[in-house]
Amino acid sequence: MSYFDCDKIQFEGPTSKNALAFKHYNPDEMIDGKSMKEHLRFAAAYWHVMRNDLSDPFGAGTARTPWDDGSSSVENALQRVDVFFEFLEKTGIEYYCWHDRDIAPELNDLSASNAALDRVVAKLKQKQAETGVKLLWGTACLFSHPRYAHGAATSPDASVYAYAGAQVKKAMEATKELDGLGYTFWGGREGYATLLNTNMKRELDHLAAFLHMAVEHAKQIGFEGPFYIEPKPREPSTHQYDSDAAACLNFLREYGLMDHFKLNIETNHATLAGHTMEHELTVSANAGMLGSIDANRGDTLIGWDTDQFPTDIYLTTQVMLVMLNTGGFSTGGLNFDAKRRRESHEPIDLIHAHIGGMDAFARGLKIAAAIRADGRLASFVQERYASFDRGLGAKVEAGQCSFADLETYALANGEPTLASGRQEMLENLINEFL
Amino acid sequence: MSYFDCDKIQFEGPTSKNALAFKHYNPDEMIDGKSMKEHLRFAAAYWHVMRNDLSDPFGAGTARTPWDDGSSSVENALQRVDVFFEFLEKTGIEYYCWHDRDIAPELNDLSASNAALDRVVAKLKQKQAETGVKLLWGTACLFSHPRYAHGAATSPDASVYAYAGAQVKKAMEATKELDGLGYTFWGGREGYATLLNTNMKRELDHLAAFLHMAVEHAKQIGFEGPFYIEPKPREPSTHQYDSDAAACLNFLREYGLMDHFKLNIETNHATLAGHTMEHELTVSANAGMLGSIDANRGDTLIGWDTDQFPTDIYLTTQVMLVMLNTGGFSTGGLNFDAKRRRESHEPIDLIHAHIGGMDAFARGLKIAAAIRADGRLASFVQERYASFDRGLGAKVEAGQCSFADLETYALANGEPTLASGRQEMLENLINEFL
Amino acid sequence: MSYFDCDKIQFEGPTSKNALAFKHYNPDEMIDGKSMKEHLRFAAAYWHVMRNDLSDPFGAGTARTPWDDGSSSVENALQRVDVFFEFLEKTGIEYYCWHDRDIAPELNDLSASNAALDRVVAKLKQKQAETGVKLLWGTACLFSHPRYAHGAATSPDASVYAYAGAQVKKAMEATKELDGLGYTFWGGREGYATLLNTNMKRELDHLAAFLHMAVEHAKQIGFEGPFYIEPKPREPSTHQYDSDAAACLNFLREYGLMDHFKLNIETNHATLAGHTMEHELTVSANAGMLGSIDANRGDTLIGWDTDQFPTDIYLTTQVMLVMLNTGGFSTGGLNFDAKRRRESHEPIDLIHAHIGGMDAFARGLKIAAAIRADGRLASFVQERYASFDRGLGAKVEAGQCSFADLETYALANGEPTLASGRQEMLENLINEFL
Amino acid sequence: MSYFDCDKIQFEGPTSKNALAFKHYNPDEMIDGKSMKEHLRFAAAYWHVMRNDLSDPFGAGTARTPWDDGSSSVENALQRVDVFFEFLEKTGIEYYCWHDRDIAPELNDLSASNAALDRVVAKLKQKQAETGVKLLWGTACLFSHPRYAHGAATSPDASVYAYAGAQVKKAMEATKELDGLGYTFWGGREGYATLLNTNMKRELDHLAAFLHMAVEHAKQIGFEGPFYIEPKPREPSTHQYDSDAAACLNFLREYGLMDHFKLNIETNHATLAGHTMEHELTVSANAGMLGSIDANRGDTLIGWDTDQFPTDIYLTTQVMLVMLNTGGFSTGGLNFDAKRRRESHEPIDLIHAHIGGMDAFARGLKIAAAIRADGRLASFVQERYASFDRGLGAKVEAGQCSFADLETYALANGEPTLASGRQEMLENLINEFL
Ligand SMILES: [Co+2]
Ligand SMILES: [Co+2]
Ligand SMILES: [Co+2]
Ligand SMILES: [Co+2]
Ligand SMILES: [Co+2]
Ligand SMILES: [Co+2]
Ligand SMILES: [Co+2]
Ligand SMILES: [Co+2]
Repeated sequence: MSYFDCDKIQFEGPTSKNALAFKHYNPDEMIDGKSMKEHLRFAAAYWHVMRNDLSDPFGAGTARTPWDDGSSSVENALQRVDVFFEFLEKTGIEYYCWHDRDIAPELNDLSASNAALDRVVAKLKQKQAETGVKLLWGTACLFSHPRYAHGAATSPDASVYAYAGAQVKKAMEATKELDGLGYTFWGGREGYATLLNTNMKRELDHLAAFLHMAVEHAKQIGFEGPFYIEPKPREPSTHQYDSDAAACLNFLREYGLMDHFKLNIETNHATLAGHTMEHELTVSANAGMLGSIDANRGDTLIGWDTDQFPTDIYLTTQVMLVMLNTGGFSTGGLNFDAKRRRESHEPIDLIHAHIGGMDAFARGLKIAAAIRADGRLASFVQERYASFDRGLGAKVEAGQCSFADLETYALANGEPTLASGRQEMLENLINEFL
Repeated sequence: MSYFDCDKIQFEGPTSKNALAFKHYNPDEMIDGKSMKEHLRFAAAYWHVMRNDLSDPFGAGTARTPWDDGSSSVENALQRVDVFFEFLEKTGIEYYCWHDRDIAPELNDLSASNAALDRVVAKLKQKQAETGVKLLWGTACLFSHPRYAHGAATSPDASVYAYAGAQVKKAMEATKELDGLGYTFWGGREGYATLLNTNMKRELDHLAAFLHMAVEHAKQIGFEGPFYIEPKPREPSTHQYDSDAAACLNFLREYGLMDHFKLNIETNHATLAGHTMEHELTVSANAGMLGSIDANRGDTLIGWDTDQFPTDIYLTTQVMLVMLNTGGFSTGGLNFDAKRRRESHEPIDLIHAHIGGMDAFARGLKIAAAIRADGRLASFVQERYASFDRGLGAKVEAGQCSFADLETYALANGEPTLASGRQEMLENLINEFL
Repeated sequence: MSYFDCDKIQFEGPTSKNALAFKHYNPDEMIDGKSMKEHLRFAAAYWHVMRNDLSDPFGAGTARTPWDDGSSSVENALQRVDVFFEFLEKTGIEYYCWHDRDIAPELNDLSASNAALDRVVAKLKQKQAETGVKLLWGTACLFSHPRYAHGAATSPDASVYAYAGAQVKKAMEATKELDGLGYTFWGGREGYATLLNTNMKRELDHLAAFLHMAVEHAKQIGFEGPFYIEPKPREPSTHQYDSDAAACLNFLREYGLMDHFKLNIETNHATLAGHTMEHELTVSANAGMLGSIDANRGDTLIGWDTDQFPTDIYLTTQVMLVMLNTGGFSTGGLNFDAKRRRESHEPIDLIHAHIGGMDAFARGLKIAAAIRADGRLASFVQERYASFDRGLGAKVEAGQCSFADLETYALANGEPTLASGRQEMLENLINEFL
Repeated sequence: MSYFDCDKIQFEGPTSKNALAFKHYNPDEMIDGKSMKEHLRFAAAYWHVMRNDLSDPFGAGTARTPWDDGSSSVENALQRVDVFFEFLEKTGIEYYCWHDRDIAPELNDLSASNAALDRVVAKLKQKQAETGVKLLWGTACLFSHPRYAHGAATSPDASVYAYAGAQVKKAMEATKELDGLGYTFWGGREGYATLLNTNMKRELDHLAAFLHMAVEHAKQIGFEGPFYIEPKPREPSTHQYDSDAAACLNFLREYGLMDHFKLNIETNHATLAGHTMEHELTVSANAGMLGSIDANRGDTLIGWDTDQFPTDIYLTTQVMLVMLNTGGFSTGGLNFDAKRRRESHEPIDLIHAHIGGMDAFARGLKIAAAIRADGRLASFVQERYASFDRGLGAKVEAGQCSFADLETYALANGEPTLASGRQEMLENLINEFL
């Protein structure tokens, strides 16, 4: 039975007027020696495609889900798997991501929830085998159930902490069972509502202990994929500990966890934190810690995480420039952690939304590759730092310079000449390629 | 000659209606075994008191400064020193801070600027000796001159980098000469205007090399006070590298600089970065890196760094709670990095402004001490984490727990009970003390 | 049966350490010739006290509500009424506000929903009679049900518009039946998700027609209380039409609705709109349009409407200064449109929360009255504009001046003298009274 | 003598790699029956091109201006006129805008300043005649001089108010002399620093009186072009009265000024106010009040008015869609109220910057025209409101409906069907045209 009122989406090229076709995403087209789909590694988010009812703080869900009986039964969960794989087949998306409680029900009894998860994982494994779809990463939902109101790995209550550990253990095992390429931590409630009742140091010590246990458990079960931490600021808590890439890196460095983790950078979280996406990607890449991407966008005039579909070509160009410059994804990919607006409540809107995101990234990839082939942008930057390739600058980079050396140079050479940064010219250059 | 139309400001107590008196700041009053002035260690900022003409991006300066002839002469600079010390004497502030170019002129010739600096430093030294005033910290202005348009220690031009090094070398020596208790780095232009023309990794490598040279030079000249880094986001560049405490700590950890630096936390920078002041103080204190404070406030509805005087008792209470809980200042203090509004252009407004800040912190100190003496707040927090003081929680804290242990516990103990966080009750409790 | 684990809250004065007592709110204490309770006119919000389960976009509700069977039955709704009146009795709050769907269930059938509403209204009427509690205002919930996803009075679908009209008609009649002192419009979905699919002009024309029908219906049923519009920006839609006081006033003026409406100003909406609460109150008051207040606060570092309880004495002082300066409430009051944090999930937290808000406003009232009695603040402002009380300024105010007159004056009088605005001195003055 | 190191910029088409050529702006190319230059009516801002030294709050100016001797002499001012007209000729911009104090010096003596202005205006008149360049609008600078620190038309000091009136009178006369097509009010200091010292009502009454005098004076001198008000929030004051389009319209309606004013909408001001540019344009257009545009952009992650050059094709498409839908400019145009970054300090950067803005708008125009020709977007919107074209909806629009009618309809017709808003599909549709 079909729930999405369309055939498999085809590439029809830029002149097509068919809303249900790709104009730019041509999976096997080669760009710089790799196919588009190898570059982009699109993933669908089980939570948004299957479990987001499009409710918001001011109103009930609107999503039309004729396949779902609304129950917490395992049968209902298994039925959703078929619908999800229909969706993947029609959009041509070959990776996916889940939280444990997206794919299987929370049954308010750990054993029962675990057993339900096992049954759904078995079916997912079979569907993966049949279709070649791969699990980009799994994660445990440690924020939705009331037990996690004060946090999970940062809860002040050790029994909540234990529950969270048990849940992550199981979710890691399910990820391993499905040959997941990575495992993600997003600390939905790892933060504080008010510092008045919080011992921040103790909470972060507990979080670090928790992550070390995860590292240990991965070794025991033979899970080799990286762990990802996904930074996000100020939502849903008053202050999330993992507020941005720098905060995560600082934490990982402090607690000796750098070797086992990478970052999963989400666009909307970057902007809510007061950064741009390219900033967060660059910070992560510079630290050798750029792992994967949650592809969406926010609305810079709205204060919450709108998780909209990424359609801005400037954004996708910037993302793909960073990715091409750093050699592309290894275990990670572009996961559409994005939801339709509450008003776009029909199943076909899921198709429109993902087509838009995929086409936008396909264009970003082509544009970024063209900018790199052109070479003017990279040359400008290279030239701008040329004084550090030789002489005094090279000595500085070699760690052989002292303040006395710098003073000697400065006294001898007089006032430096100020070059233009040419920001406007470079912005125009980017527009040449759009 | 007197330029501030008032006598030395006296403590007259809370019932005084005299605008030119302290209602709460009573320097020698003992709180928890230390005098108020020892707790608070107020400092005046030479740049705001003496050199801020109250111009803004939309208009010329308004400040009335009858002592200043408007020239770049050393004589004018020396004349300002007397006025500044009159200001210190009348407000009873015993510490101060400067940039090199606040106290002495930028003469567009490094030797000449250095010579001018020497002359002013000699006078400051003499005034310090006469009055007992101390230098809390010095710093070099590496952001105002056009040569630093692209950064100083992160400039793409090695000759600018050299100039900056020479300037910091001299400013460190001046600080040492004046027995400065610390030396601060605020990277006014250390950031980028656009990532299009920027090699962020290379710039940060250069910055780290620069700071290592500073550490080395300190050893050579025998300067033992700590270095401070002052975090600030998104101003004046599009993105400042030292955007918040976590970003600074991450950088210091990456480049092996933690032993030589502490942080100087400014309220307005904290809020511009999307944090609260108490958050930034707590993050710094947890890392053992809380060094000093730039005491001001912003306007949370305005997007730029307004650097207003701190008068909110809630803010000063929170600051002093963190300070009392962490044992108070050692080398640092409360530096009023704050300016009058452009409309408050008379010398007496400087007096009003500092009285307000000092009284607000005096109240914050008294309130924080009372909250600590009362004990209910600390007890609530202690009790909230009690499950980590024993049993499973203690095992977690001892690093002796695995996910398997947590799972065993969780399976055996069923659903945790959710305690109330009592945020509203605790907020009411704070109000009891105001 | 009692659900709130406390006795009726008593005034015990500022020295009390009892968390379940008022330290400042002493209902019958006289301030400037009126009792505190007459000044403050506190109201409780049925939706937050009775119907907010403390869910958020990231997790299920946590609120413990042992009185509620979770059903949509009228019996359950009637049972809640008793609990709500216990709450009012214990807190001493004498007004309340509701949405139609808070007090009675949405039954997805208009006739059935209306009948259910009638039954609950009958019980409320009886409880009001027994207790003397009054209805401050009623309103219809036009944002929660999926039918209103595209708006209600601004829906592009005329049948949705009709449904909204029917619902408001009934809610107005219920308000009239309960002798409600006002009726409020908050346009929860009156805005747009994207301008791409929106005809803004047509939507606003429809909204105006809707409000004119409300005015007409009020006449027919004899409802004389004012209508309130409650401004709010950017939430839940991408852009709310009633984004701030100025936007509402502009709309009301354009469509000839000024005579029938006043504004209901909420603190958190003011700050989300980039204003302060006192700004929005002043704008409303200047237009003669300040009707009522939704008393809460936001967190200026968080981008969504947190609706926290107002505990900041500066805020409550500012609010009460505006209220005292404009003669106080007539039909309106201070409605606690505020919710506990998700972690404060016990019934007693509702009591703590309202005590905190009531005490904070009682202090604000006392402080504001003291500032007015002192007179220095008002005198300063009066004096600042003195040049418009006489001569040229008076001519300007009388509308008898031309540019030629101004030019003549300016040419004859030379450069004006710049007075100081004394902002810092005035901020200190406010602190004298806290 | 030439100061811009380039020839007149030519259209070379999209495949050109010449940074100093237009790729899209082809002035005489016809789009929908009008030439590009007639559609776009580009204007250069005298203040940014000639007078912006690229200083910022943290540093001195960097701009290289070899034509300028740095003095306040009229000769220097006259010399700048030649340079400005070279700039206009090379970029092909045919309109310009000025403040009185941009073109002629502030001499701190009204008569002298007026006389200087007369001399420069005479030269501008001659250059206009020689070149065909037109004045889009003039304005008076009422925010830069210290006398205006507390506002101009809202100053509490009547003698400042008089000075402002005299200055506007003269600036209007200069605009008339140069056949200016409009006259703009931007209330740089019309707002408040703190409500503590402010009588907002009185200030706005004074502002209204001032604008009525302007209307009167326009009649007397025969100036027929519209007055524009330019909304801007929170900068440089704490709260600007003209914070957004709605605030301006509310003010103009209240004081009976709608007939004489239109709005000049600036992108960066729109976004600082929490709106999008298309929102502000649509609000203005719906009121019949869209007059002119200040074309720039901000950085949504930075809190101040960065006034960057507009290069985002989405933005220019949205702007041109509104303009084409509302019939295009009559007296107004696209004024580049935009500045180069402080690091782009060479004269040629002015050329790069304007080329970028002009090409971006040329593309926006072509894309918007194509979207309109395609028709799918407009059809979707038309169809979405179809239920208001007939039956009950048409009755509502005709003002013939009551709540009773709506209730009858709702009771008879049951639950409405929820259509999809198709936001994602429409966003994809826009991308088809980029
Ligand atoms: Co995500
Ligand atoms: Co998100
Ligand atoms: Co500072
Ligand atoms: Co600052
Ligand atoms: Co409200
Ligand atoms: Co609210
Ligand atoms: Co402008
Ligand atoms: Co601007």
